[in-house]
Amino acid sequence: MPLRSDWSGAACPIARSLDVVGDPWVLLVLREALTGATRFEQLRSALGVADNVLSRRLAAMVEAGLLTRAPYDAGNRTREEYLLTPAGTDLFPVLHALAQWGERHRPAADGRRLDVVHERCGEVTGSADTCTACGERLRAGTVSWRRPRDPSVLAPLVR
Amino acid sequence: MPLRSDWSGAACPIARSLDVVGDPWVLLVLREALTGATRFEQLRSALGVADNVLSRRLAAMVEAGLLTRAPYDAGNRTREEYLLTPAGTDLFPVLHALAQWGERHRPAADGRRLDVVHERCGEVTGSADTCTACGERLRAGTVSWRRPRDPSVLAPLVR
Repeated sequence: MPLRSDWSGAACPIARSLDVVGDPWVLLVLREALTGATRFEQLRSALGVADNVLSRRLAAMVEAGLLTRAPYDAGNRTREEYLLTPAGTDLFPVLHALAQWGERHRPAADGRRLDVVHERCGEVTGSADTCTACGERLRAGTVSWRRPRDPSVLAPLVR
Repeated sequence: MPLRSDWSGAACPIARSLDVVGDPWVLLVLREALTGATRFEQLRSALGVADNVLSRRLAAMVEAGLLTRAPYDAGNRTREEYLLTPAGTDLFPVLHALAQWGERHRPAADGRRLDVVHERCGEVTGSADTCTACGERLRAGTVSWRRPRDPSVLAPLVR
């Protein structure tokens, strides 16, 4: 993504992060990866994104250390899938902060919500990174999402 | 900014938020606005951004309800400044989550940090929206930033 300013050496950590994730598709790929999507086709289908747009974002995310490529056996040949790194997983509070702002200031017309559930206490949290019920710090391995499209399913975040 | 997908009606609140703030300049303008910048020249100078890029972002932010325009007296004529709305102010946890990821995964070469200080207890917090020292929920009116460029100054967030 050589299409804009380089903030990698900025004094401000917000700008340094935006150098990596200041792109909506990157954050939407992370959203899918956090609930287990690993393959190009899964991501393309979930996001409704054009092949070339997705390819560029995945390459940039691998280069930035958010994802790693790993081979898998696709029947008659080997293909590659994309696995979250710890740096990629650590972005879940950014997604939570965006989700909570969206629920407050851009609520869905049908009233459905994305709930962030802290599995350790079973309660919904309204914080990006802390359980508002029990106070424990959230980790990817202790959080599930109740997604608006399938509220009967709790999708655990990949740790 | 008619340059990409429309996520305003998405089922997912992350996507609906990205429809508004899925642009690095928008988040950097918010960063400046949160510590009191209101005028075009202040923003342009702080961000080192081209006039046309900044103008487009400000217009989009007004349209999205993150900023409002207000007249001010500029000596021989009236000009407009940009004031944060409650919806704009409510985005501070997104900036904090980005800052905390940046400090962890893209630390500055000179070791300087952006610290988020909870004024009510005086401690630095490592959460986007909760004081990790006293547990209180952060509000814009109770938070200051100790910015990397001027760590001797505590900049209170505009409420």
